[in-house]
Amino acid sequence: MNTPHAPEVSARVRELHSQMTLPEKVAQLVGFWVDQGSEIVAPMQGEMAVSSRYEDATVHGIGHLTRVYGTRPVDPIERAGWLWAEQRRLVEQTRLGIPALVHEECLTGLAAWKAATFPTPLAWGASFDPGLVETMAASIGDTMHQLGIHQGLAPVLDVIRDPRWGRVDECISEDPYVVGDIGTAYVRGLQSEGVHATLKHFTGYSGSQAGRNHAPNHAGKREVADVFLPPFEMAVKQGHVRSVMNSYAEIDGVPMAASVELLTELLRDTWGFDGVVVADYFAVAFLQTMHRVAPTTSAAAELALAAGIDVELPSGDAYVELLAGDGEAAKRAEPFIDRAVLRVLAQKEELGLLDARFDAPPTAIEMDSPRHRAIALSLAEESIILLSNNGILPLASAPGTIALIGPNMDDSSALMGCYSFANHVLAHHPGTPYGFSVPTVADALRAQFPSSNVVTAAGCDVEGDDRFGFAEAIAATQAADVAVVAVGDRAGLFGRGTVGEGNDVATLNLPGVQRELVLELCATGTPVILIMLTGRPYALDWALDAQTMPAAVLQSFFPGEEGAAALAAIISGATAPSGRLPVSMPRAAGAQPYYYLHPVLGGNSEVTSADSNPVRPFGFGLTYTTFEHSDLEVPAIAATHETLEASVTVTNTGDRAGTDVVQLYTAQPYRSVTRPVAQLVAYERVNLEPGESVTVTFSVPPTRLAFSDKEYRRVVEPGPVEWWVGPSCEEKETTAELILSGAPYELTGDEALFSLATVSRTSVVVPG
Amino acid sequence: MNTPHAPEVSARVRELHSQMTLPEKVAQLVGFWVDQGSEIVAPMQGEMAVSSRYEDATVHGIGHLTRVYGTRPVDPIERAGWLWAEQRRLVEQTRLGIPALVHEECLTGLAAWKAATFPTPLAWGASFDPGLVETMAASIGDTMHQLGIHQGLAPVLDVIRDPRWGRVDECISEDPYVVGDIGTAYVRGLQSEGVHATLKHFTGYSGSQAGRNHAPNHAGKREVADVFLPPFEMAVKQGHVRSVMNSYAEIDGVPMAASVELLTELLRDTWGFDGVVVADYFAVAFLQTMHRVAPTTSAAAELALAAGIDVELPSGDAYVELLAGDGEAAKRAEPFIDRAVLRVLAQKEELGLLDARFDAPPTAIEMDSPRHRAIALSLAEESIILLSNNGILPLASAPGTIALIGPNMDDSSALMGCYSFANHVLAHHPGTPYGFSVPTVADALRAQFPSSNVVTAAGCDVEGDDRFGFAEAIAATQAADVAVVAVGDRAGLFGRGTVGEGNDVATLNLPGVQRELVLELCATGTPVILIMLTGRPYALDWALDAQTMPAAVLQSFFPGEEGAAALAAIISGATAPSGRLPVSMPRAAGAQPYYYLHPVLGGNSEVTSADSNPVRPFGFGLTYTTFEHSDLEVPAIAATHETLEASVTVTNTGDRAGTDVVQLYTAQPYRSVTRPVAQLVAYERVNLEPGESVTVTFSVPPTRLAFSDKEYRRVVEPGPVEWWVGPSCEEKETTAELILSGAPYELTGDEALFSLATVSRTSVVVPG
Repeated sequence: MNTPHAPEVSARVRELHSQMTLPEKVAQLVGFWVDQGSEIVAPMQGEMAVSSRYEDATVHGIGHLTRVYGTRPVDPIERAGWLWAEQRRLVEQTRLGIPALVHEECLTGLAAWKAATFPTPLAWGASFDPGLVETMAASIGDTMHQLGIHQGLAPVLDVIRDPRWGRVDECISEDPYVVGDIGTAYVRGLQSEGVHATLKHFTGYSGSQAGRNHAPNHAGKREVADVFLPPFEMAVKQGHVRSVMNSYAEIDGVPMAASVELLTELLRDTWGFDGVVVADYFAVAFLQTMHRVAPTTSAAAELALAAGIDVELPSGDAYVELLAGDGEAAKRAEPFIDRAVLRVLAQKEELGLLDARFDAPPTAIEMDSPRHRAIALSLAEESIILLSNNGILPLASAPGTIALIGPNMDDSSALMGCYSFANHVLAHHPGTPYGFSVPTVADALRAQFPSSNVVTAAGCDVEGDDRFGFAEAIAATQAADVAVVAVGDRAGLFGRGTVGEGNDVATLNLPGVQRELVLELCATGTPVILIMLTGRPYALDWALDAQTMPAAVLQSFFPGEEGAAALAAIISGATAPSGRLPVSMPRAAGAQPYYYLHPVLGGNSEVTSADSNPVRPFGFGLTYTTFEHSDLEVPAIAATHETLEASVTVTNTGDRAGTDVVQLYTAQPYRSVTRPVAQLVAYERVNLEPGESVTVTFSVPPTRLAFSDKEYRRVVEPGPVEWWVGPSCEEKETTAELILSGAPYELTGDEALFSLATVSRTSVVVPG
Repeated sequence: MNTPHAPEVSARVRELHSQMTLPEKVAQLVGFWVDQGSEIVAPMQGEMAVSSRYEDATVHGIGHLTRVYGTRPVDPIERAGWLWAEQRRLVEQTRLGIPALVHEECLTGLAAWKAATFPTPLAWGASFDPGLVETMAASIGDTMHQLGIHQGLAPVLDVIRDPRWGRVDECISEDPYVVGDIGTAYVRGLQSEGVHATLKHFTGYSGSQAGRNHAPNHAGKREVADVFLPPFEMAVKQGHVRSVMNSYAEIDGVPMAASVELLTELLRDTWGFDGVVVADYFAVAFLQTMHRVAPTTSAAAELALAAGIDVELPSGDAYVELLAGDGEAAKRAEPFIDRAVLRVLAQKEELGLLDARFDAPPTAIEMDSPRHRAIALSLAEESIILLSNNGILPLASAPGTIALIGPNMDDSSALMGCYSFANHVLAHHPGTPYGFSVPTVADALRAQFPSSNVVTAAGCDVEGDDRFGFAEAIAATQAADVAVVAVGDRAGLFGRGTVGEGNDVATLNLPGVQRELVLELCATGTPVILIMLTGRPYALDWALDAQTMPAAVLQSFFPGEEGAAALAAIISGATAPSGRLPVSMPRAAGAQPYYYLHPVLGGNSEVTSADSNPVRPFGFGLTYTTFEHSDLEVPAIAATHETLEASVTVTNTGDRAGTDVVQLYTAQPYRSVTRPVAQLVAYERVNLEPGESVTVTFSVPPTRLAFSDKEYRRVVEPGPVEWWVGPSCEEKETTAELILSGAPYELTGDEALFSLATVSRTSVVVPG
């Protein structure tokens, strides 16, 4: 093993470290999961008690406390009181007096009882609105800070590669730039409140074989560099993220938890990351049990420490095993232990923990305030995608009778993602109320149309083949002027639910008999407005391109606590839809993997009979007005190192106000390696009154056109660049061509690889 | 561009080369496809005439004549007369007097009219009998040699990675070692008759995204080294193959036709290949049109020449374009042109072409002799896999009435693969007879059971949803004592047929309504013997693990001209089945890719709900007796560089003679990179009388346990090795463990990486 570089730390941290025994060092490198498992928390001891094993584990101090609020429903104020007392105990009763760092899940909001639940990341992607995501993350961070939580295990920066994977709902997009842009906004927002964000999962987790969770990622070095890594690079270099979590993946045979190349040489030596790397839960032990690259957990600990995993989570199974051994292994590992301890102490110092006294626990906390709810509503509204509309939407006037149908119509859990507290934790506590309001779609539609006569019927469950309610649903639809039907997923984990962690699929048909239900309702002749409440895109050709099909289809990736209100506002026309597909809408499971960012031969071609063409392309989404894109202008020629300005005029050609997502695409043919047929380089949400025109100017840094050449240098190569703007990646409504000249431009290490496009606007109201 | 190394050639070749003009050089680097397209062969001029454009193209000589026999049905003797005359013309009327090299397809036999058609490569794999494949290839080479053909475009050494791909029927197995072992046997056989074999497709073609033809291969460097390359390395180093064809694939962004790294640095500089690299048809131009790594076909030619593509096929579109340019490009490329010309001349010298006079064309040629047919029958018999049997097979006595059902029951084309002349070429000439005998399954069963009453009904077509014959088939089955039902694929190209080049799929359900037909026949209560005549493995859970299912299922990958006789012999019991699955039998298209050679997390696990477990595992196959494997013995400890002996006893525990394929598997946990849970290291067919025992001793070279470590060195690492023998990769009937000790053993460049396991036998007849 190499001798590690010691990180640069303050004199105080250096001094503290110099006093530490090996057990005290290892204690700082592990978490303890207070509430996990009955052998840890004796059920008899009541909610606030901890076992003696916890006391044993913290006798030398402890690095992290794992999900103090997020493991079971605990009252936040009461729990904060317990936590403050525990922290005081660590400060006062351990030799070194170092408090614990408290981490929680917080992807769709703090995953704790009574906390606000926001839209799932796929909905963030659909909004194409990093600014609003930043605001959301700041509101999450504010609550966490009040609760004494120091680190949040979000955002997920995995680039979607296969919709079969169950964790797609935790991801933002299939476009690395959109993932990095919106993910970095989340980092900025959370960290603005003093809570450290954690990038998940570094890297390659989403590229698993056939979308099977934890299965090998087969990607080559160029794909890793150009697809999986950019979002992390953006969040490190531009978001200054303070923590990174390894991925469970193995890439081309190397498990990420054992990758010196990625965790140390790339992340730290090349990118300059100076925060703390934490293990994904159990990932260190998995090096022995799952990847089998270490014969013992102690050997697994050595590998992980040498690679650069500073903190083992959720608890210290492997690192403590290393310490408990014959001493030889711990001695070999000590330089890496020291490196990790210095980083952890520096993080605690940065968080103010080395001076914290924990005198006054909070007595009131903003868990789900009107501010949270307003942000949740805005983001939900911006994220809902209108996939089809025969003109029925928006409903011109309140219908006489509305049938509200479908298993997701009157169920709050259908609005929340897999990492929401409701679906992640409360599902194990049946009967426990959410502790905050999550109106169902039926609630919201009743409120939106108070004068309408409403009849309801579930029709069927999300899963299973029981058609118990078909007859009732058909009758209700026949008797109604319009039917609104909500179908889709139920988020859960490991076999509970249809999407979420471990819930991978081998088919992309809508689960259960929901498709059959919708088709039978359509056959009644009553217009059907279909709402897809899902965590992944499904194969919807039958709902979008068939003879008998819904009058309108809305796709909503789990929209959160105000998602139902957003849907009702869009159906009524109070709000116009403005979401766009952040993923390709797949043709079939058997056609996966597919993604828009592919070279010529990655999609349909003359030489294959297999149809991979998406049912709706990346970037697609309708609204209640129409937009025209025209006059795309770029320079005719530019040097490879230049920042490029591209301007385009967008006009609202309909008779209602609306929001367009202006999407600027490029393609770079004839480079030294194959390049995608389309690549989004910039985008911007633009609100336009009827008849209004705006010229949007994007400033595109050369880095946005860079890729890894044959020698894996990140370069901009000379050659033609095709540009277009249109309503999706596939429609070239206005085009331009630019020639890049000069020598290949190699990016320097310090250069921000993904500077955001800047936008300036010139409003021109079209006369008439 | 670098200056290429000049190949070592004879003084005569050097002298010849020194006299050549640039047009004469380029002429030697291209093929001409005499019969292709009406603008080339004017239909009015009759069969033997060639257009003036052909004469133009050969004015400076020509490198290859492309598929002289294999493009349309031409009488072999007449065509040989034409060819001899053409070669005389080239010798006598071109300045340098160099004849053309004639190449043909020959994967399942020479792809020419009236030539014998053997089983498809997947059937070779199922036979696990390289010796018989070598004999087959020699018989193919013999015919080709008689016809004046110098090079055959076979074998295909692509390792199966996804059964959705249409060209799976051209491949041997999903195990790289089986592919290399059997493929090298083919090379030896063909070349023993003086015909040069061509390895296809170098490399990575079979690993395309979602099994779509020509789609990108995403593999990392280690997967390329350990999975895709070994068969090629075996055929180069151990088979001394004389030609290699590039793959259409791009791997991690680099098209193989432009890969200096693989075509020159690896193939030649590292492996020592000194033959000729030919382009896959149109692959040079595809660098511009499909991969878009070159702006013009001339630039594509430069890339291909520099990478190491010596000869452009089928014709010289790009290389001639390079010559026709302004002279600058050709000047730049001339060192690479010279290198390629020297190689081509050396090949022609080696083939005796530089001295050939072409005085006496053949007057009689063995196209499909009794010898061919006997080999075809043996290989077909060895390749048929018994997947299930409730005891009905072998049929105890001739049934009173047999119903012969299914679209593949009475159709000769169903017995032949995509690269058979019948399905590849004759399909375009409806009404033209095969010119040799291909009895159908119905023919063979009638012959096998002459005393039985036979009723026939197709039931349905292979494709489409027409159930025109269901009623008739059901009635025939109801009236019979037993029904034999033949369903499956029709091989063809690019949308014609259900499997073959370009016929990729997004579902692995049996095409059309064939499954529905079989299930309805099973429901009659009459025992159904199902014959799968296919080019890929299908998802057969419904036929193997259900309530209502066939009494027995035989899987036959296109078994060739004597395949029907082989099936009839197995059904009657005249022959016992002995084929084993050379591929995993898939669960579903949506569960792909899947292969048995996967690390722990590549298959089913606790962390995914997606079921990838194959319906039947690699290596599986039943027969009419039973075998027991016992007493596996390996050394307890060995050094990493040692050759290892493993012995196992196999006993025929049934009451009939039979053939077992003894399969020796290993796993190597706790290495520096993740390793497969199972890996076949040796196998051997063993014939045993009832009660007979044999001890088989395998000598396994250390190279068989080598893999690419973190630094991509090919090493054998110390650690435990688990060994087992059983009836498939999944069943550990007898096990042993060995510890490899010492330092990692790095293979030297010259070491034959895949020395075959040698086998010695000690027969012990068990008393009683």
